[in-house]
Amino acid sequence: MENFNYSIPTKVYFGKGQIKNLAAIIKEYGNKILIAYGGGSIKKIGLYDEMIKILNDNSISYVELSGIEPNPRIETVRKGIKICKENNVEVVLAVGGGSTIDCAKVIAAGVKYEGDPWDLVTSPQKINEVLPIVTILTLSATGSEMDPHAVISDMTTNQKLGTGHENMKPKASILDPEYTYSVPKNQTAAGTADIMSHIFETYFNHTKGVDIQDSTAEGLLRACIKYGKIAIENPKDYDARANLMWASSWAINGLISYGTNSPWVVHPMEHELSAFYDITHGVGLAILTPHWMKYSLDDTTVFKFAQYGINVWGIDKNLDKFEIANKAIEKTSEFFKELGIPSTLREVGIKEDKLELMAKKAMNPYFKYAFKPLDENDILKIFKAAL
Amino acid sequence: MENFNYSIPTKVYFGKGQIKNLAAIIKEYGNKILIAYGGGSIKKIGLYDEMIKILNDNSISYVELSGIEPNPRIETVRKGIKICKENNVEVVLAVGGGSTIDCAKVIAAGVKYEGDPWDLVTSPQKINEVLPIVTILTLSATGSEMDPHAVISDMTTNQKLGTGHENMKPKASILDPEYTYSVPKNQTAAGTADIMSHIFETYFNHTKGVDIQDSTAEGLLRACIKYGKIAIENPKDYDARANLMWASSWAINGLISYGTNSPWVVHPMEHELSAFYDITHGVGLAILTPHWMKYSLDDTTVFKFAQYGINVWGIDKNLDKFEIANKAIEKTSEFFKELGIPSTLREVGIKEDKLELMAKKAMNPYFKYAFKPLDENDILKIFKAAL
Repeated sequence: MENFNYSIPTKVYFGKGQIKNLAAIIKEYGNKILIAYGGGSIKKIGLYDEMIKILNDNSISYVELSGIEPNPRIETVRKGIKICKENNVEVVLAVGGGSTIDCAKVIAAGVKYEGDPWDLVTSPQKINEVLPIVTILTLSATGSEMDPHAVISDMTTNQKLGTGHENMKPKASILDPEYTYSVPKNQTAAGTADIMSHIFETYFNHTKGVDIQDSTAEGLLRACIKYGKIAIENPKDYDARANLMWASSWAINGLISYGTNSPWVVHPMEHELSAFYDITHGVGLAILTPHWMKYSLDDTTVFKFAQYGINVWGIDKNLDKFEIANKAIEKTSEFFKELGIPSTLREVGIKEDKLELMAKKAMNPYFKYAFKPLDENDILKIFKAAL
Repeated sequence: MENFNYSIPTKVYFGKGQIKNLAAIIKEYGNKILIAYGGGSIKKIGLYDEMIKILNDNSISYVELSGIEPNPRIETVRKGIKICKENNVEVVLAVGGGSTIDCAKVIAAGVKYEGDPWDLVTSPQKINEVLPIVTILTLSATGSEMDPHAVISDMTTNQKLGTGHENMKPKASILDPEYTYSVPKNQTAAGTADIMSHIFETYFNHTKGVDIQDSTAEGLLRACIKYGKIAIENPKDYDARANLMWASSWAINGLISYGTNSPWVVHPMEHELSAFYDITHGVGLAILTPHWMKYSLDDTTVFKFAQYGINVWGIDKNLDKFEIANKAIEKTSEFFKELGIPSTLREVGIKEDKLELMAKKAMNPYFKYAFKPLDENDILKIFKAAL
């Protein structure tokens, strides 16, 4: 097990009706808030009205930033910062899924930064003071409700970049699984794939003696596989929505990565697909993952793919380890198909012409330390296999 | 899954050499500290000298409370509070195992309380302000390094009681597995049993839809079983000590209990054994646990004992569920024996004469909500079976 510094300070209010704590949570940090949200889904499910009533009843004043897009844009971040500065906002309340929370995080950091907020995306070390962030989650996927990360896009330059800072961890998050009852099947599927990808990114590593991290990751994956299907078949199954929601937070809040050591590779590859084609992040991940797995399987990595097959998919441990590994990859691929996710890049409108450019941009020096080390040519091969 | 409010604010510095962060951690809260510790083991392993050098080099002034006993006494708490008040201590640094940390917690709370600290043990709601607590862990067992609880004894009245408060969670804990290399075999065994008992207390519940909590608990139990043995055979196996240490924190910091609902029963029973006979807590737990399991096994509980047998002990899932359950209980009992822990109360000097009185004192109204509801007579039967 590697050394690590653990810090997961976000308070989580999990379960039915937890919005009752909203006013008390906010008042710990201020009385003037920015409500950041996306499209109209929070109005459709009644959450917006419920929230506004609580704010009014408790004399919390608010301004709004609506229309935060999936793959949130730097222009929207700039707009949010302007609203906060003009209104002396003290707390940023993000209501929505990962895109909304990510956007809110960089707004909260940008309010306390003199320059242009794109600096904070390209240079996370420039982040310092951050307005307190509170979230109400309505989509189980990115884990942004309990982590320090944000991904922001500049579509004018086809850049989609991740940033992060300890101070961007939300102070508190309200996780009510009932808010996800109305999430459509395709978004539930993409969210489940995103959660699973976060787990894969840390689980596939060469670190010895990380039994606790491994078994926790495997349990989370089994929960995603079981409850992802149930949530799609029966969107109002509370335990399914609850397990997916809690898995989304655990997948990336540090619990399974502390003590391990492996750089992420599939996310950076997918970010290029989204930056050029604005596709749904989870869909891109689900398409790439089985191909990345196949490409990464060799004598040095088969041990972990076999472990994955046995402990997550229940494959007979007495089979040949490569047979187990290949079956596990096949099952992963089949599972995403069963969830109704496209399985090729062509299906989401991606053609061969930009693959080379995207592979070039996805490449990062730390890829040489990946579970299976990758160079630009390897990435291109994975893209082509996924086409 | 049940509703829950998650809060695990303790920062953990885990791994080799993490003591290098000690001064920075303390200085966040003050410059005058109380060092609380037990016998001489921290001097034997060189930790005391290492720590004092860091304090001196960083102009942190300190006073000391040594000699904190296993099953720490209220008299020692009073002594610690007096030292803190006389010296305007700002931070309490606990260096040792659970007993030392528990004692330090009630000292830190008692400094800010006007009355006698025994009030804070009998009435946790009287705890309010608490001096910042920092810990350096030297024994993997109680999980006190990352939780709000403390257990304090008054041997003059044979009372051993648990208390707890959100503000008693340590601000930071240094967890260096190398500090546990010199823990003797019997303490390693008792510590492992304590960790496993914490997991059992929450794992055996009737809550539906807690797959994430269950699989995490099962993974922790497998880690304890694997690494408990290894640590006893090879005390300087880093990964064994690291997994036991991290398991000790996870077992009771809330990760596996949030969302579940079951009152603890074996710990309250064991506390009576320790209060009357001053035995090692983990030994008492290991003796009682298999008998509590056997007594609790019936048509309403067999599902979970069978799940435990399959997922923790790898017992064939095609067997009859009661057969699986009984085999699992047998394996639990055998495991504790293999660790060298006594398996009867007589072996640790407990005789029949006080069993009735201890059962009476252990009884608590909430035992009727236990996994298998228990009354005073049930407790007596478990004690007698363990004799």
